[in-house]
Amino acid sequence: MTVKHTILLVEDNPADVLLMKRAFRKEDLSHVSLQVVEDGDAAVLYLSGEGEYCDRERYPLPALILLDLKLPRRSGHEVLAWLRQQPQLKRLPVIILTSSKETIDVNQAYDLGVNSYLVKPPGFGALGEMLKTINLYWLLNNEQPEVA
Amino acid sequence: MTVKHTILLVEDNPADVLLMKRAFRKEDLSHVSLQVVEDGDAAVLYLSGEGEYCDRERYPLPALILLDLKLPRRSGHEVLAWLRQQPQLKRLPVIILTSSKETIDVNQAYDLGVNSYLVKPPGFGALGEMLKTINLYWLLNNEQPEVA
Repeated sequence: MTVKHTILLVEDNPADVLLMKRAFRKEDLSHVSLQVVEDGDAAVLYLSGEGEYCDRERYPLPALILLDLKLPRRSGHEVLAWLRQQPQLKRLPVIILTSSKETIDVNQAYDLGVNSYLVKPPGFGALGEMLKTINLYWLLNNEQPEVA
Repeated sequence: MTVKHTILLVEDNPADVLLMKRAFRKEDLSHVSLQVVEDGDAAVLYLSGEGEYCDRERYPLPALILLDLKLPRRSGHEVLAWLRQQPQLKRLPVIILTSSKETIDVNQAYDLGVNSYLVKPPGFGALGEMLKTINLYWLLNNEQPEVA
């Protein structure tokens, strides 16, 4: 099947990355190419197409970003704030995907212009269901903006 | 069943309003209270809790706004721009729901800070499916920000 969409996962917890990759395979989201970066600085490099991510064929701009909050080097909030200030990238849909349900984290994400905020569900089955819902909503229903 | 969520539909086409109401009933979204206003000025009054909408018990702040673009008096883009400048309301999730797939309309909505952009689907069955997906994603999965 032709890969039609790229999702960029920004997640530093190797266990969570592994779970996500497994859930993507299990839910037959083979039309989605999952790219993973492990800290906030790498997310900025990837999205800028700089450094090791300079090849846009290999590291395409994503249709959607799944962004953890507690990240090394640059937090999810900082990555989001940076993204919304980039003329070529600012429209990219961003979902915060985190274990934090703290009101202050949720509010700050919306204040910085997040599209949506999801809390990591407990358990592998629930994660798979959430990924199916993300795919259905954001990749199959939502109209994408133009970027760069 | 206790009403848990309010959705504000801003839509001037009576046929579309009727279809939405029917689809809500058919899809058993009885936990959602659908409020409807028919132009951009009425949307601003409703959200401000002014004029005929001053009773917040009767006209609660919505968890989600479904906003048409081509509206009398004030366009959907104008309502969105206004909303994002209101300190008490700016975090409210807004979905543009329109018949326009024009790139310029989509881009402008994202530039103004829309959360998501959906195109009205053809046919009653497809509309019902879309409403179920909206409910699943925004009311059951998404973490709501604090407002007012």
